[in-house]
Amino acid sequence: MYPMYDWACDLFPINRSLTGEGVRQTLRYLADLLPGLEIHSVPSGAKAFDWTVPNEWNVREAYIADEDGNRVIDFRNCNLHLVGYSVAVDQWMSLDELEPHLHSIPDMPGAIPYLTSYYSAYWGFCLTHDQRRTLKPGKYRVVIDSTLQPGELNYAELILPGTEKTEVLLSTYVCHPSMANNELSGPVVTAALAKWLMTLPNRRHTYRIVFIPETIGSIVYLSRHLEHLRQSVIAGYVVTCAGDDRAYSFLASRKDGTLADRAARHVLAATVGTWDEYSFLDRGSDERQYCSPGVDLPVASVMRSKYATYPEYHTSLDNLDLITPSGLAGAFDVLRRCLEVIEGNRTYRNAIPCEPQLGKRGLYPTISNHDTHAIVKTMMDLLAYCDGESDLLSVAERIGADFTACREIAEKLAANGVLELAAP
Amino acid sequence: MYPMYDWACDLFPINRSLTGEGVRQTLRYLADLLPGLEIHSVPSGAKAFDWTVPNEWNVREAYIADEDGNRVIDFRNCNLHLVGYSVAVDQWMSLDELEPHLHSIPDMPGAIPYLTSYYSAYWGFCLTHDQRRTLKPGKYRVVIDSTLQPGELNYAELILPGTEKTEVLLSTYVCHPSMANNELSGPVVTAALAKWLMTLPNRRHTYRIVFIPETIGSIVYLSRHLEHLRQSVIAGYVVTCAGDDRAYSFLASRKDGTLADRAARHVLAATVGTWDEYSFLDRGSDERQYCSPGVDLPVASVMRSKYATYPEYHTSLDNLDLITPSGLAGAFDVLRRCLEVIEGNRTYRNAIPCEPQLGKRGLYPTISNHDTHAIVKTMMDLLAYCDGESDLLSVAERIGADFTACREIAEKLAANGVLELAAP
Amino acid sequence: MYPMYDWACDLFPINRSLTGEGVRQTLRYLADLLPGLEIHSVPSGAKAFDWTVPNEWNVREAYIADEDGNRVIDFRNCNLHLVGYSVAVDQWMSLDELEPHLHSIPDMPGAIPYLTSYYSAYWGFCLTHDQRRTLKPGKYRVVIDSTLQPGELNYAELILPGTEKTEVLLSTYVCHPSMANNELSGPVVTAALAKWLMTLPNRRHTYRIVFIPETIGSIVYLSRHLEHLRQSVIAGYVVTCAGDDRAYSFLASRKDGTLADRAARHVLAATVGTWDEYSFLDRGSDERQYCSPGVDLPVASVMRSKYATYPEYHTSLDNLDLITPSGLAGAFDVLRRCLEVIEGNRTYRNAIPCEPQLGKRGLYPTISNHDTHAIVKTMMDLLAYCDGESDLLSVAERIGADFTACREIAEKLAANGVLELAAP
Repeated sequence: MYPMYDWACDLFPINRSLTGEGVRQTLRYLADLLPGLEIHSVPSGAKAFDWTVPNEWNVREAYIADEDGNRVIDFRNCNLHLVGYSVAVDQWMSLDELEPHLHSIPDMPGAIPYLTSYYSAYWGFCLTHDQRRTLKPGKYRVVIDSTLQPGELNYAELILPGTEKTEVLLSTYVCHPSMANNELSGPVVTAALAKWLMTLPNRRHTYRIVFIPETIGSIVYLSRHLEHLRQSVIAGYVVTCAGDDRAYSFLASRKDGTLADRAARHVLAATVGTWDEYSFLDRGSDERQYCSPGVDLPVASVMRSKYATYPEYHTSLDNLDLITPSGLAGAFDVLRRCLEVIEGNRTYRNAIPCEPQLGKRGLYPTISNHDTHAIVKTMMDLLAYCDGESDLLSVAERIGADFTACREIAEKLAANGVLELAAP
Repeated sequence: MYPMYDWACDLFPINRSLTGEGVRQTLRYLADLLPGLEIHSVPSGAKAFDWTVPNEWNVREAYIADEDGNRVIDFRNCNLHLVGYSVAVDQWMSLDELEPHLHSIPDMPGAIPYLTSYYSAYWGFCLTHDQRRTLKPGKYRVVIDSTLQPGELNYAELILPGTEKTEVLLSTYVCHPSMANNELSGPVVTAALAKWLMTLPNRRHTYRIVFIPETIGSIVYLSRHLEHLRQSVIAGYVVTCAGDDRAYSFLASRKDGTLADRAARHVLAATVGTWDEYSFLDRGSDERQYCSPGVDLPVASVMRSKYATYPEYHTSLDNLDLITPSGLAGAFDVLRRCLEVIEGNRTYRNAIPCEPQLGKRGLYPTISNHDTHAIVKTMMDLLAYCDGESDLLSVAERIGADFTACREIAEKLAANGVLELAAP
Repeated sequence: MYPMYDWACDLFPINRSLTGEGVRQTLRYLADLLPGLEIHSVPSGAKAFDWTVPNEWNVREAYIADEDGNRVIDFRNCNLHLVGYSVAVDQWMSLDELEPHLHSIPDMPGAIPYLTSYYSAYWGFCLTHDQRRTLKPGKYRVVIDSTLQPGELNYAELILPGTEKTEVLLSTYVCHPSMANNELSGPVVTAALAKWLMTLPNRRHTYRIVFIPETIGSIVYLSRHLEHLRQSVIAGYVVTCAGDDRAYSFLASRKDGTLADRAARHVLAATVGTWDEYSFLDRGSDERQYCSPGVDLPVASVMRSKYATYPEYHTSLDNLDLITPSGLAGAFDVLRRCLEVIEGNRTYRNAIPCEPQLGKRGLYPTISNHDTHAIVKTMMDLLAYCDGESDLLSVAERIGADFTACREIAEKLAANGVLELAAP
């Protein structure tokens, strides 16, 4: 299908953060994949609701060297070594002085943790606990050649117009440095969905696909499009943690029961069978903004192993070995089917009181016996439950049938004048 | 009580179908039982919503004879031998040529199946699989002396007026040839209910009782009375499969929760205890029309063994041995009680704020101790829950009491001015 | 805290009934405890909805003496010996003639039952079954020197005004003679709650606290204040059976789901964990009036061992040994917390679209890692669920947090301008 894993490999080494050259490099890569993707720039200091766009952060180099000049920790080896948004420093200090700036995980001695300090001036290094235990007392030179100064925040947006005014939102984030399930899987699966949507004939809804830095990015985006989104978006998904092969997960929107929630659960039940179900109480990504009171967009998340639930989360062990081509393909497939449900979901009603005479339209077997009773059951159920109030997804759930099968039959019945669309 | 089983025996041999002399003969028998029953006629070719009334079918004789003139299958022996609505034929043919026109059930080798082909020109014979295996190669003469030509469709209607404009619908069907549970039990139990309703003093609702051919009959009937029925019918039952002794069954209306559904479940719980519960997804008779979107009548079904669930269904084994006088009486009794609930169900409210002083009206024991607390509990519960919003059936369910007991007490309290009817 | 048990000991010996000197003596004692408590008087014969205030009943003495003048039963020893509202008598009679006027409990041979005959002229004596078995045939002199004549019915009312017009009702009853759980516990716990409410700074709601005779008292009270109460009361509790140490009980209001019900269940779950849950079908005290159709006040009951469920109920065994200081304190504590929930329950909404920037307000840790994610969870959950529609109690229940903790955080967030009160 789409070489999602290859894209992830290409993007993995880049040092992404809320802002900076790594984000732009990532967005340019995606723009090469997705014609029409527009990269936007918002200046540092710009206001977005309660927030201010932070300064732009860039790193030339960062390391800790011992008295012999050996770099014991070097940002060049792994960009997780540096706490995100670390301010510049160039200073000799003892190990004791250095300790408060070192971060490791005693319980996961082989993993480098991922830390950031976006909104409070700080510098620090992350390392494996194994390495930390080898550090000897002595003098160390700490060098962080970073800049944190007015610049810009970047995000990218792709609008794929449909035949109706209704919109579907896909949102994923590009602020995580070298990690794979959380979070290169989201951008690459989203890119594949965008490519698939481009091929969709007679696209009904408009698809609004955004690649943003998490939290500040969605807040900035909402602050510029809130009214339009509130009026247009009928469903949306945050695409995140979409790459490993261990589980499927679903996190409901705040109000639950929206079209995004219903479509996702229907597809998961039909294609995957079992999944880890989370409520909005377990939220953790940009649905925090999209579903916040006063914003209230119908946005849910379909994931593989959810953030904050798997051991490698937010460490250097969340790497390209953790995600797989089949893991990415599974997430893509479920999300694609969700979008198909949303595309095909319409509200029908019987065009004729009582049952229609299917026989004269060639829709009913000519011999009636106890076998043929079963054959036409799904068709008859659709006719019995399409009442102009329940949408097709509700009817499919009610009659225990797969949405795709229902959609095919409903469109056939509509073509024969037996069902009709309820007034928009 | 009413000799329902005897009626079924009288009616059993008649060859009923959607139309024809057998239907009229059946309706005349019922008209003899039920003064006021009016037989209606609708000409072939008449339109009813999406349907056209079919030609009338009559059979003089039908058989298959071997080369020696022996009638190996003869309609005179069992009218199930002939596929319903078979067109005329008189032809010699080989067994191989005959095979596509023969119908039997390999898994039930002793049963003649019941088949029809109403809306597609066809002829065929049904026989036991045991007999089919004995047919030898050779020439057979196939004779069906039937007519299928413009005539009429018949149904009968009995209106028993009440003191209010609200109506209760009872519908049963007269299109099945010689079968007993499905379906002579329905007409005979309905006839008994009609006789009982005639004896009911101060009948409150109008009872509309129809004997129709299934499907086309209810569609024709609805096409002529839809607006009136939608405005008047507060509850209704399709009376079908009401004769055997093996089970009680309930099939809810499409929207469920109507008065018909609530009354039936209350009565079944109070009198039978356990029953087979079916949803509208399991429908199969005229509720398909009565509950269809845009018609939406509150019609449910209370049955003994439901159609399509018992082995003898739609075969010659569904005969007079399968139904019993007590089976019919059980169905009659439950349905009668349902109608009693519907008759007695009113919405009361307290006529007095706070508890009334029952003592001064002689409604309360004079000594209060922990025993008498219990004695007046049901009366007090009615007073506490009759709030002008919940009808008496809801209150009875809420307080865990039998409807009949509640009705007696409520009427006593109303007679004493303590409860009053909520505005109509 | 408050010496509730001592108050109960003081009040225990008084002979209370619907009316009479014992009620006034009890109310004067309470008025000494509670400055501002006003004692009201309603003349016998006054109308209250369907009821008439009964004559006032007073007893000078009552006894049964044997032929030797020995008082075998004497009201002076225990005021339960006399059936409440017994009319005057002075008469010699045989044991056989006396029998219909004697009441004992064969299954509880050591208990004197509690009986009344308020609305039907009668006299009788209650005694232990053990004693009854010792009564010898012979002549007995029965003396009841009681008066039942026009006088007054008394109740007391304390209004503690708040800053808003909304009211909370506490109702307890003072018509039971010498019994402890049912019913001196109610008045003494209510008195303690009133004292506590007097100390509450910035009381928000108005507290309406009534000490009344059961049934006739609440009917009289409602007949004089119905419209005002219907417009003002947002929650209320009948305080009864609040003294033993064996159980906690909750009895819901008729409609359930009111603020009184929700607060009580939240507090019981948070502080007690398990309790006996009763529906309004199990009602038995003045909630019968407060929740009656047309009155519909949101009044529930939080109890220790509920009336009519414990063996000593309505007998002389419901005495000062049955209730304990800790039993009373437990009831007081739960009810006090219920009132705190009702005081603190407000409906907040986010003042800012999307998440607020908590960091710049010093409300968020500066380092973000997988530990601190958890630290701010409750704060973030409040922000995510306070949508201007759900009150704080609903939000606390939804996010699985304790109301008191939520209230503190919500008030802090409101003080920081992050939450705001939804329009009243």
